[in-house]
Amino acid sequence: MSAGTAPSFTPGRPIRMADVAQWDIETDVAIVGLGAAGSCAAIEARQAGADVQVFEVAAAPGGSAALSGGEVYVGGSGGTRIQQAHGFHDQTEDLIAYLMMAGGPGADAERVRVYAENAVAHFDWLEAQGVPFKGTYLPGKWIEPVSDDTLLWSGSEAAWPFSAQARPAPRGHTAQLEGWGGGGKMLMGTLCERAAAVGANIHCNSRALCLIVDDRRRVQGLVVRIDGTAKFVRARRGVVLCAGGFIVNRDMVARFAPAALACTNVVSGGNDDGSGIRMGMSVGGAAIHMDQFFTTLPYFPPNSLVKGIFVNQRGERFINEDAYHGRVAHYVLRQPGGKAWLLVDNEIFGRPLLQPDIEVAAAGDTWAEVEGELGLPAGSLVHTVEEFNRHAANGEDPMLHKSAEWLRPLTQPPFAALSYCAGDYQVHAFTMGGLHTRPGGEVLDADGQPIAGLYAAGRTACGLPRWGEGYSSGMSLGDSTFFGRQAGISAARNTD
Amino acid sequence: MSAGTAPSFTPGRPIRMADVAQWDIETDVAIVGLGAAGSCAAIEARQAGADVQVFEVAAAPGGSAALSGGEVYVGGSGGTRIQQAHGFHDQTEDLIAYLMMAGGPGADAERVRVYAENAVAHFDWLEAQGVPFKGTYLPGKWIEPVSDDTLLWSGSEAAWPFSAQARPAPRGHTAQLEGWGGGGKMLMGTLCERAAAVGANIHCNSRALCLIVDDRRRVQGLVVRIDGTAKFVRARRGVVLCAGGFIVNRDMVARFAPAALACTNVVSGGNDDGSGIRMGMSVGGAAIHMDQFFTTLPYFPPNSLVKGIFVNQRGERFINEDAYHGRVAHYVLRQPGGKAWLLVDNEIFGRPLLQPDIEVAAAGDTWAEVEGELGLPAGSLVHTVEEFNRHAANGEDPMLHKSAEWLRPLTQPPFAALSYCAGDYQVHAFTMGGLHTRPGGEVLDADGQPIAGLYAAGRTACGLPRWGEGYSSGMSLGDSTFFGRQAGISAARNTD
Repeated sequence: MSAGTAPSFTPGRPIRMADVAQWDIETDVAIVGLGAAGSCAAIEARQAGADVQVFEVAAAPGGSAALSGGEVYVGGSGGTRIQQAHGFHDQTEDLIAYLMMAGGPGADAERVRVYAENAVAHFDWLEAQGVPFKGTYLPGKWIEPVSDDTLLWSGSEAAWPFSAQARPAPRGHTAQLEGWGGGGKMLMGTLCERAAAVGANIHCNSRALCLIVDDRRRVQGLVVRIDGTAKFVRARRGVVLCAGGFIVNRDMVARFAPAALACTNVVSGGNDDGSGIRMGMSVGGAAIHMDQFFTTLPYFPPNSLVKGIFVNQRGERFINEDAYHGRVAHYVLRQPGGKAWLLVDNEIFGRPLLQPDIEVAAAGDTWAEVEGELGLPAGSLVHTVEEFNRHAANGEDPMLHKSAEWLRPLTQPPFAALSYCAGDYQVHAFTMGGLHTRPGGEVLDADGQPIAGLYAAGRTACGLPRWGEGYSSGMSLGDSTFFGRQAGISAARNTD
Repeated sequence: MSAGTAPSFTPGRPIRMADVAQWDIETDVAIVGLGAAGSCAAIEARQAGADVQVFEVAAAPGGSAALSGGEVYVGGSGGTRIQQAHGFHDQTEDLIAYLMMAGGPGADAERVRVYAENAVAHFDWLEAQGVPFKGTYLPGKWIEPVSDDTLLWSGSEAAWPFSAQARPAPRGHTAQLEGWGGGGKMLMGTLCERAAAVGANIHCNSRALCLIVDDRRRVQGLVVRIDGTAKFVRARRGVVLCAGGFIVNRDMVARFAPAALACTNVVSGGNDDGSGIRMGMSVGGAAIHMDQFFTTLPYFPPNSLVKGIFVNQRGERFINEDAYHGRVAHYVLRQPGGKAWLLVDNEIFGRPLLQPDIEVAAAGDTWAEVEGELGLPAGSLVHTVEEFNRHAANGEDPMLHKSAEWLRPLTQPPFAALSYCAGDYQVHAFTMGGLHTRPGGEVLDADGQPIAGLYAAGRTACGLPRWGEGYSSGMSLGDSTFFGRQAGISAARNTD
């Protein structure tokens, strides 16, 4: 097989060893993708003594993680040094309880425990790689910090029902760099430099085309396109797929996560095309929880808007608005007819900073006027606000358990309803489903048996984030960096 | 490879042609499973001139379909002869609109159109095979008919929002045999006899162990265990997987459809172990919509209970109770804390026929008493019932659009709340996810490309039923029999 046949290589179909005329590159461990998972896999595989080659499709390393806020979700073991410095003594069992709730009905208890017991050590490891954390604590609610502070409340920890089952602590740890997305740039810059420094051989502009398997279904390498030429890469110990998720592949989204088609904005560096997942599936790897996705609608800051209440077309509330914004977004998305509004009064009103052109769907001096303008069933919205106000005045929310900090009667006219109806706002999304793996990164087939020589981590695998309603900022980076390390170690030690 | 190594064969891993010492059975088309899809695939493949061997794991043919009510969801083209005889002139575009809604966000427009345009002809084909339909029309709402009548309202056709977008018609056509489950027995008895009569060679007690692929990933056959011995089956034109879904495989349910773990009762003949899906995945087949499942809770008959209203722990309604019972069940299952109750008054109360021991969670002479006994937020349930009653008196339901036929104020004490809280009732389920196929049955890989020599239908594939909330009785049998036929024809004609 010559380079001339390269166009026929496709992720969904492996080639056989017998079709490889010669090896262009030989290594112990081949890693696809140099993002959060790939960089950590590379560092660990190298430090375990393996020769490492990394193939990154983009012109520069960093993956989608480089565009993120750079938050890593860690805690437990009594707290990271930063949690402890600010008085948060985070117990492992609380982190486990939170992560199990966050994982939803398909939570992976073994993965959660491994992570929770080692998260503080993982944070120390990130610092040891050179990732800077300023160490300061930023109270309040944030979509992403605009400062360079470290410690934040990044999920639903303080919100019902999570707060009732796991003692809350802030666990979002952001790498230090001023400005939006600065944390991710800093985190990934550091990790990718470190991967190079420890001797990983990094190829950018290199697209992984398909896997190479032998007659025993052991993965022996992969085909990559470099400078327009197909290269055959031998990976003696294993291939680690760290190629991201599939949110930019609309065809895959339609097939595997159709509810995410409603999301207009992809959270991606542009290469989350599902090719890593497809390569895994091509050799019998099972993809799980493929329907699940992160989504958000940034209805705050200003934080005063969290004191507003969301209602649907029945004029009823449906979520405690102080939950993680991504959880709120999932509830908004699923309301009948895609219709929802955020009700605010004059005291808390402010243009949402991240979407200042949000449509004011109705306004009035009474809630009855707003109800009428929205065309809701007569009396429905008025009743909802009256009941909310009555209890909020006592710092209570018996219907949805919003915490007292965010409760305030909506009594200062004029009143308004901000439109969070489908089409009226931007919805951001990335996918959570991916290859079924052991915590060590071994890719499993449909029977739950490992596929020799194949590993995956990050959003190519299905990790801690596997339930849209349960996600918290920093979980994807925490999962990707931690389990990327495990996959790198497993591949480097593989003697199959 | 000898029979002695049989225990190592597993659905998740194919074997290679080179590992086959001899062919024990040679045929044109090998079909795994003799249920609704497999029997129809066998008939068509035979009639297209192919030699056909069918391998059924159970001691007797019929699959899970034999235990069903035997309803087939068909219509369009102006109506089946039975729809027309009863004055229902069912248009194809209405059937398409309904099936597209029923398919949810991942509906397959091509599959829906092929089915809708040919459903009446398919019904005629079933009659031509000898399946008897009495031809009578049974009005009202039924979980399954206890009579031997043919035509029923088997879904959400007459309920909002379906009724607003597709002109309603009854489309459930039940095979004639008195008693529960009789229809399925009659349907499958007839189709399986027909498959044998046209010359399909049927092996019962025969477990498919794994696929056999050649070096080009073409499926060339499969290994089956017959009388404790592994037999190597050559399928010159193709293998058709019709082995059902995966509801009896709890491990697969946990991985792929964890929300269905809440369902206590499987709708299965016992062999929906996902082995067909796993065999497809083993050679790179993509499984889609694996999270989706049918579920039901039989809260009626008596039909008077449909006039009750479901409320959640906020004392709020959440579904129009006249929707298909499976749709209602999905809404009940997802209520916060797994808590829901059906509110009834003395006039409509009756023990649910299918679960007469349902717990009466609260009762009282006023709705305030019921509210208090259930521990709901003060005033919440009272308000809900008052508003419902006020509008119901006018034949209206502005909140949830229940149709006037089922609206009646709940004003006759004593009042009661029947518990539909998790654990208090039986939930039935089967899985909807399966292999991604073309309407012709060709199994597709993760890139959407066909895997030569491999076909699937019935619940081993992902067909018309792919969204739990949209299912209607008869869709699975309609899909399985129709697309089973297509897969049989495709395999018989395969010249790859």
